[in-house]
Amino acid sequence: MKPWKTLSRELVLDFSRFLAVERHTVELPDGRIIENWPWVVIPEFVDVLPVLEDGRLLVMRQFKYGVGEVSLSTMGGMIDAGETPEQAARREMYEEMGCEAREMVFLGKYAADANRRCGTAHLFLALGARPVTEPHSGDLEEQEIVPLTREEARRAMLNGEFKMLSWTATLGLALAWLDQHFPESAA
Amino acid sequence: MKPWKTLSRELVLDFSRFLAVERHTVELPDGRIIENWPWVVIPEFVDVLPVLEDGRLLVMRQFKYGVGEVSLSTMGGMIDAGETPEQAARREMYEEMGCEAREMVFLGKYAADANRRCGTAHLFLALGARPVTEPHSGDLEEQEIVPLTREEARRAMLNGEFKMLSWTATLGLALAWLDQHFPESAA
Repeated sequence: MKPWKTLSRELVLDFSRFLAVERHTVELPDGRIIENWPWVVIPEFVDVLPVLEDGRLLVMRQFKYGVGEVSLSTMGGMIDAGETPEQAARREMYEEMGCEAREMVFLGKYAADANRRCGTAHLFLALGARPVTEPHSGDLEEQEIVPLTREEARRAMLNGEFKMLSWTATLGLALAWLDQHFPESAA
Repeated sequence: MKPWKTLSRELVLDFSRFLAVERHTVELPDGRIIENWPWVVIPEFVDVLPVLEDGRLLVMRQFKYGVGEVSLSTMGGMIDAGETPEQAARREMYEEMGCEAREMVFLGKYAADANRRCGTAHLFLALGARPVTEPHSGDLEEQEIVPLTREEARRAMLNGEFKMLSWTATLGLALAWLDQHFPESAA
């Protein structure tokens, strides 16, 4: 199973630091050429789910413009220049929730779109999280921090209450990881 | 917690039926105006995870250009004009895996990006799936169908082997749903 080859790439829209679009020419393993493949450049981002020492998960409730309605969410943000994904995850957690954590569990790196890319997500679970200061995210959105037990979070996830893919991917991974490593505190 | 208002939208790139970009002017609940908000229009799509009567899950292994490497995946595709999401999910399952299913469980509707949208995913679990014909997807990608036990699928998910957000979101939701409804056949 061979990769496709990028023969050329051309910038067709430089919208802002939040979005650019390229046109790629692509060669398939069987030699076929595709001339007009769209590629969306969006900054890499992190999503983080903190777990308190008592086992509760800290999620947010907020309106996000891309979602179009109020939703539960994990917290996330762009990776700044010079940051590793883990550093970005710790910074976002400090800014948006005023928390530090004992240990960051990396839950993987994921493309946002299987054809056009649309950015890359790095997902984290933050173990032993504790509030150390007031949140001061500077985000445009009004945000509420919501502590949930593991079972409350699972129910909300299954109800579709985390209305964006990276939030639900983070929840699904985090719950499976916690069930495996700490089955006794599942309640 | 109030929604933001879209004051105007302007088409800035009409790339193809697979991608367009708009510029929005947005009003925040506190009256602030944001002039240059990027919005990415990508067709709505479905992802489906079929479960055989013996409890095994059918996933795929394929190279996807947006991911840039070979990955395990769920199967998915665009919703055609006039189709409901469930009809698209059944059609994709028939085309890509040659399967029909007894019952479709809707796992929710999710934005692909919290700010720019980048499409909307409708996720499904297909219960009582069975092969009825040869796959004939017509897709450009070479695809291999891989049956996994629930625990094999969980391990692969936690290893980050489903390298795109909607695939991992589908797996996380499907495994949580199956554990809840059929705990006895978890092995």
